[in-house]
Amino acid sequence: MSKPAIAKGTRDFLPSEVIKRNYIFDHIKEVFKTYGYLPIETPAIELLQTLTGKYGDEGDKLLFKILNNGDYLAKANPAALAKKDSNAMLSSISRRGLRYDLTVPLARYVSMHQNDIQFPFKRYAIQPVWRADRPQKGRYQEFYQCDADVVGSDSLMYEAELLQVLDTVYARLDLDVIIKLNNRKILQGIAEVTGQSDNFIGVTVAIDKLDKIGRDKVAIELTNLGMDDNAASTILDLIQLHDINLIATKLSDSETGMLGVSEMKEVMDYMSDYTLKNKIEFDFTLARGLSYYTGCIIEVVADTATYPDLKMGSLSGGGRYADLTSMFGLKDMSGVGVSFGAERIYDVMEECNLFPESVTKSIDIFFVSFDTESHRYACRQVSALRAAGISADIYPENTKMKKQMKYANGTAAPYVAIIGSDEVEAGVIAVKEMVTGDQVNFSLAQLIEKLKA
Amino acid sequence: MSKPAIAKGTRDFLPSEVIKRNYIFDHIKEVFKTYGYLPIETPAIELLQTLTGKYGDEGDKLLFKILNNGDYLAKANPAALAKKDSNAMLSSISRRGLRYDLTVPLARYVSMHQNDIQFPFKRYAIQPVWRADRPQKGRYQEFYQCDADVVGSDSLMYEAELLQVLDTVYARLDLDVIIKLNNRKILQGIAEVTGQSDNFIGVTVAIDKLDKIGRDKVAIELTNLGMDDNAASTILDLIQLHDINLIATKLSDSETGMLGVSEMKEVMDYMSDYTLKNKIEFDFTLARGLSYYTGCIIEVVADTATYPDLKMGSLSGGGRYADLTSMFGLKDMSGVGVSFGAERIYDVMEECNLFPESVTKSIDIFFVSFDTESHRYACRQVSALRAAGISADIYPENTKMKKQMKYANGTAAPYVAIIGSDEVEAGVIAVKEMVTGDQVNFSLAQLIEKLKA
Repeated sequence: MSKPAIAKGTRDFLPSEVIKRNYIFDHIKEVFKTYGYLPIETPAIELLQTLTGKYGDEGDKLLFKILNNGDYLAKANPAALAKKDSNAMLSSISRRGLRYDLTVPLARYVSMHQNDIQFPFKRYAIQPVWRADRPQKGRYQEFYQCDADVVGSDSLMYEAELLQVLDTVYARLDLDVIIKLNNRKILQGIAEVTGQSDNFIGVTVAIDKLDKIGRDKVAIELTNLGMDDNAASTILDLIQLHDINLIATKLSDSETGMLGVSEMKEVMDYMSDYTLKNKIEFDFTLARGLSYYTGCIIEVVADTATYPDLKMGSLSGGGRYADLTSMFGLKDMSGVGVSFGAERIYDVMEECNLFPESVTKSIDIFFVSFDTESHRYACRQVSALRAAGISADIYPENTKMKKQMKYANGTAAPYVAIIGSDEVEAGVIAVKEMVTGDQVNFSLAQLIEKLKA
Repeated sequence: MSKPAIAKGTRDFLPSEVIKRNYIFDHIKEVFKTYGYLPIETPAIELLQTLTGKYGDEGDKLLFKILNNGDYLAKANPAALAKKDSNAMLSSISRRGLRYDLTVPLARYVSMHQNDIQFPFKRYAIQPVWRADRPQKGRYQEFYQCDADVVGSDSLMYEAELLQVLDTVYARLDLDVIIKLNNRKILQGIAEVTGQSDNFIGVTVAIDKLDKIGRDKVAIELTNLGMDDNAASTILDLIQLHDINLIATKLSDSETGMLGVSEMKEVMDYMSDYTLKNKIEFDFTLARGLSYYTGCIIEVVADTATYPDLKMGSLSGGGRYADLTSMFGLKDMSGVGVSFGAERIYDVMEECNLFPESVTKSIDIFFVSFDTESHRYACRQVSALRAAGISADIYPENTKMKKQMKYANGTAAPYVAIIGSDEVEAGVIAVKEMVTGDQVNFSLAQLIEKLKA
């Protein structure tokens, strides 16, 4: 006998949690499909040669590595073994690891299957990933990612399309958000016109903290990079403009900056055909994952005008990465994608009570019965309802009514059918509506009609 | 740059494959829900203490073990390290492994969450499992299991219910099967009345091979257990009876055997309320997983009367296990369940052409356009169609028509909208039905109505 326990950083999900999570996943999937994205799946287990070096040194440490099967020490690096050098020994005892995100597997997939797919390749994937992060509230070692990406086209139509995907998903979830937009080229332009091109990475690292540490402290970080107060102040003024036409007047001396502006204008022009349900805004302080993105950068946050008390990071992110697959030898494949943070979306929807009450209704009707004969009669009704596609269930025996009703309540079924000898004799089904307490007799055909409606 | 490769025994799935797999999973899920089964999810990563020793020595070897993170050698067992003893070192460098099936995690889950769930607990789970088996045709190291189980009731109503679940799923998939039934107690009865109770396990191992090696060779295996030709012959006659009333007359001297008979009669009595779409038959040669099951045993095979050329093992299996959770300290929890072999079902459906043609239709309509203005006009129509819930897509630019049409064909969209300056001017959408080649002009409203129908 072993004490039942679960690995730290992992979770079991109760039925009500799975149902709510699927509510989110199903809405996302439905929108992905409407927009023509196709599902793919990649294995949880990838070769370490695929994963290692793709997420930085920190990422390499957070990869889950799978021990080779069998007598794994037989081929262990002898020198590393002698020195007890975990790092040096690793590749000789582990050749596989667990998927860390869905993007590197996508790049591998596109490179391997380039002759089986057509470009632009629009794919979505909703799968778990694993990271050996220190577990803490809201951070798990096993969690889902939901990504939609277009690979093999640099058309800015796709930036607009993915903004529409974001807007549509959050509208369908009834979750008000602000969609924030930036472009790496605009940030490069800002660095250029302030003479800080050489400090570009440092500048973006600093401005990325604006939210958290405020303008004054970012200014100090900027001057620490070697620029004067004036340049720092100009940068801070520019990134807080929120207006594409205004920033255009300031970046006219930067070719890259103006390219960024024209890209964003083209995206917004595509968007003009579409009625947004959420707010969209330019935010030139946005610098997420900048080492990765090359054009448009997208971030989605819950709208604090609707949810003033909510404290939550970004719910979605995305952008354009000009060169996705060259790490696997396939050149010139531009990609653009968005990712939904399903775990955070779940937390926001729970906190703000956004799940519809009906979502956790698992069955339509539950049957209880008073004696053996009425139990068997009830079984026949349940069979008939199920055959008609209605979700129905029954207590497995005619035990104490109190026990059966308690179970019926636990199922959260909106209707409970109570069957005794009277109902059997009359050939009817006595149905109690649980919210009102009203009880009405139905024939089977009437009940099917009612529950199908 | 690394050469793109995939770990052996794992698979990527192309969109058409994912869509077909989901067709199977969705049908199974829908039926599970109709029958009142609730979804749960458990993590892919389990503690090795949960997994080890639950699947026999062979199973322990096939578990994927995850290397502890960080400097895993720091705490490695020094004696094992010195002797390069992989087995002895294992527990000191790996405390977690990958889920091997869905049943042990269910037992752990029920034991841990016994206060959060109500019994009988009806749950389903559709999740991947991992086994380090030698990969071969049709056998993978990462594959899905689809299980429905009832925990915490010994009512035989659930055996009947699960037989109905099996029948309904295969009927909905339009896949003809034979559902085979046995009961471990009947097998025990057969061993008893032939004086072979002490040989019970040996007897079941032998008769389990009847399919493969034939009656004569099974007879030899039986006599090798120490019984005479007469006993072996009687056993072989009994297991080939296929008739519950006939076997009842032969097992009257065995209390256990007669209990098995009465259980099966009660199950069939519950089934009498239900109209089967597939064949169901008693098969007393059925001995699958006998060390595990304690009552009813179920196996489903494709019906060779419908598919004469098909060579395929069982598609589903299941049964009653009287004591599921005692391995985790929770006593007296009887369980009964069935499992769908989705991978084999997929292979049969492919081989026998059972997927409906429409299943791989990914989008309803695809737009192509002749020039910039018509491209933007087409974008607006696509936006409007998507907003109406219609799955629509468009080539990202007005490039060569041949290239756009090739892509449109690749999407397998049943309709292609072809937009040029005429359509823009008239404010219509020219729609080509791809199967017939017919082309008709629609207004946007008409097209929405047509595609919604």
